[in-house]
This record gives sequence, C-alpha cells and structure tokens, in this order.
Amino acid sequence: MPGSIRLFVTAPLHQGAELAATAAQAHYLGTVMRRTAGDEVLLFNGNDGEWQARIATLRRGAASFVADRFIRPQATEPDLWLVFALLKRDATDLVVQKATELGVSALWPVLTARTNAQRVNLARFHAIATEAAEQSERLTVPAIHDPRPLSALLQDWPAGRRLFVAAERVAAAPIVATLEPAGLLIGPEGGFAPAELDAIQGRPLVTIVTLGPRILRAETAAIVGLARLQGAGSG
Amino acid sequence: MPGSIRLFVTAPLHQGAELAATAAQAHYLGTVMRRTAGDEVLLFNGNDGEWQARIATLRRGAASFVADRFIRPQATEPDLWLVFALLKRDATDLVVQKATELGVSALWPVLTARTNAQRVNLARFHAIATEAAEQSERLTVPAIHDPRPLSALLQDWPAGRRLFVAAERVAAAPIVATLEPAGLLIGPEGGFAPAELDAIQGRPLVTIVTLGPRILRAETAAIVGLARLQGAGSG
Repeated sequence: MPGSIRLFVTAPLHQGAELAATAAQAHYLGTVMRRTAGDEVLLFNGNDGEWQARIATLRRGAASFVADRFIRPQATEPDLWLVFALLKRDATDLVVQKATELGVSALWPVLTARTNAQRVNLARFHAIATEAAEQSERLTVPAIHDPRPLSALLQDWPAGRRLFVAAERVAAAPIVATLEPAGLLIGPEGGFAPAELDAIQGRPLVTIVTLGPRILRAETAAIVGLARLQGAGSG
Repeated sequence: MPGSIRLFVTAPLHQGAELAATAAQAHYLGTVMRRTAGDEVLLFNGNDGEWQARIATLRRGAASFVADRFIRPQATEPDLWLVFALLKRDATDLVVQKATELGVSALWPVLTARTNAQRVNLARFHAIATEAAEQSERLTVPAIHDPRPLSALLQDWPAGRRLFVAAERVAAAPIVATLEPAGLLIGPEGGFAPAELDAIQGRPLVTIVTLGPRILRAETAAIVGLARLQGAGSG
C-alpha cells in the first residue's frame, strides 16, 4: 500500500477501537498532508499488528481514529541492539534514523573516553525513530535508552547476547550475518582509547570485527555493520 | 597513522616531487588545522600510491609540498558503480559521501520518471567525494558523471558489467557480495514507474534484488546495497 500514511500509536488496536491522535499527528494529517475525516491511515502500536483505520474526527490540533480492518499480524523482528558512542548532533540523528530503518530493537547511546559530553534530547531521538519506523513499515519503534558510560553498559551486558565490536586498523574477522540476539558496538570518531579496548576485549561474548579496509565515519560504520549483521535478506 | 592529514592531489607523486596545494588545501592546512611549513601530510593522486610529504611553504592562500617517502602502493579497489536517481540535496550529498567511503569507483546520477528535475553542482559532488576519499584512506576519488536519463544510461550499459537493481515490494533474490565488475541501481523515493521497471527488466545483465522486508529510504538503500554487494571483508 505505497503512499499510505502510517502512524505509531500507543493505545491498544482492535476492531472498532477508538484512538486519539497526538497533537503532532493531528497537525501532520490536517495541515501537512491535507487529510480529512473519513480518510484512511495505517496504525501500529508495537503489539497488535497493523490496522487500517479511518480518521473519525480532525480539527485543528486534535484528531481521532477508528480501527477498521486488521492488515497484518505483529511479526518477529530482529533482536539486534546498536550500542554507539554519541556523535555530533547531525551524525547521531542519522544513526537513530538509519538504525531504525534497519530494524534494530534497541538503541544504547554510550559515553566513551573520547566522547565529548553533551546533552541528549531523548524525546527528539524518539520522534526521529518513530518517523523512521512509520516510513519503513516496521511494526515497532526501537527502545532508546538513556546515555550511560560504556563501562557500565559492558558491566550489565546480558548473558547470551553476543557483542560485535567494530574496530579499525586491527586484524579481525569480517562481520557476518547472525540470527542470534546480538549487539553491535560502534566507537566514537576518535576510536576507543587503548584501555577501553582492553576492557572490551576482556568481556565474554565479545567479537571484534572489521568492516573492511577503508576507514568509515562512525555513522557509516553503524549503518554498514547493521546491514551486514542482518544478512542479505533480513535488513 | 591515525590523525594524519591526507590530501588528494592531481600532480604526479614521486620521490622529491614538488607540488602546489590548491587554495582550499592551503586554507585548510594553515587556518583550520594550524599546520606550518615542515609538518607532514599524506598525499595520493589515484595513480602513484600514497606518499608522505612535508609542507614546504605555507602562507595565506598558498602552500606547496615535497614528497618524501613512499608509504603504500596503489591498490586494486572495487570496480563498483552506483547509479542513483537524484534525490533532495541533503540526501544526494549523503549518497555521494557514503558511496565514496564504501569504495565505489564511479557515481552515475540519473533522472527517472519520478525524479524532480534539479540543477546539479558537479564541483560540489566532487568536493564531497574528495573529502570522503581523504578521510576514508582510499587511494582514489570516484568518477562522478553528469546526470543523464536512466534510459540513456541503460542503453549504453557496458557488456560484462552486471547491474543489480534494488526493488521494493517484489519477490526477488537477496543481494549478495560480488567480486565482478558491477553496478547498483537505486531508484527515486517514489520508486520506478512501471514502464521504467519493465525497461530495466528487459535489459541483459540485470538482476533485481531485495534489500529486505523493510522499506528503506533511497539513500539508506544505496548505502545498504553497497555494503552488502561488497561482502563482509571488502567494504
């Protein structure tokens, strides 16, 4: 259904469900997309699959939907986390958007020795991820966690989840597709500090991987690493 | 040699070669990077490998280098073309930058039925590609061709070069790595028109491929497609 407007909602979806739009969705529908009451949209909430719905009411700043028809069931999505050192704002935004398009289930921004501390607007990240999920026809929006130090995240890394770490200028195995629960760790533009790399390599479940002979920007490394981890048919 | 300044030059490189910097390079070295005469840089020209050079002279708006030491020979790079429908300016810039990082040898912007005609600044594309080549430690800068209609490009497509075409919402084989001369064709945001897709599929050497279940933005599709075509160890 190319061209359909897809929106993420938080309320339960079922036949006949009545849902309120957010103010931003109402603005988007009425002012940006020039839709009116009676027009159809697609809705998903991360749990109940995808539903065709119609706009029941639409006026300045407020709208509501009624779910009409079940379109497709909630599907299994990749269990893939992206752990990335915070970058400059534009690069971080790009990572959030592209990682969402590529299907990651969770985003973990981390602070590393060479990460310049910065304020992070999680609501902004969530808005970027939601829009990317809507456009990419995902049925979920990835979880986006509060930034934390890399060392703390490594300390709490869950058993059973492999962590692939993209490294430059080292001999390492190429990154290959996996279907297991996994994470991909991308360092900051300046790379990991030597002590960080030692700590990373000392953890269980860590695999150092190379993305190839050229030196990629951090945001490119995130996209390329995710594309390769997901394999040819699943990204 | 992390952190070294790498610059693309057009003059021949050999032991003792004296080269003039461009005005932009002189500004970058002196004003942005605060380098002075005697400091070292790395130079490449796409033919003669990589050379360590020192800044021989540096004053406002002008600089020169002397090549001192051969660092590494010109290596074979992927023979991979990216053919892409022109996008909005930011997205096109991103494609040029990321495709260069990913090692493409030539960029072919094309006009399709759903491409909004636009002016293109090839010098700007070349500057973006040159900077990306310098930072990614490539030894070449990709060729960037004048935009032309997709139909004309297909008509002139060289024998022996496979063209992978990323398609959405169709049953197709997943994209996999290739070491042969190849091209990747990415359509505009609205997709190819049906008549275009027929014409594409009617050409020899064309393989329709899928990038996965989600709908990727055009610039994401370009990056993901190139990452997968290059395989795990070569990108």
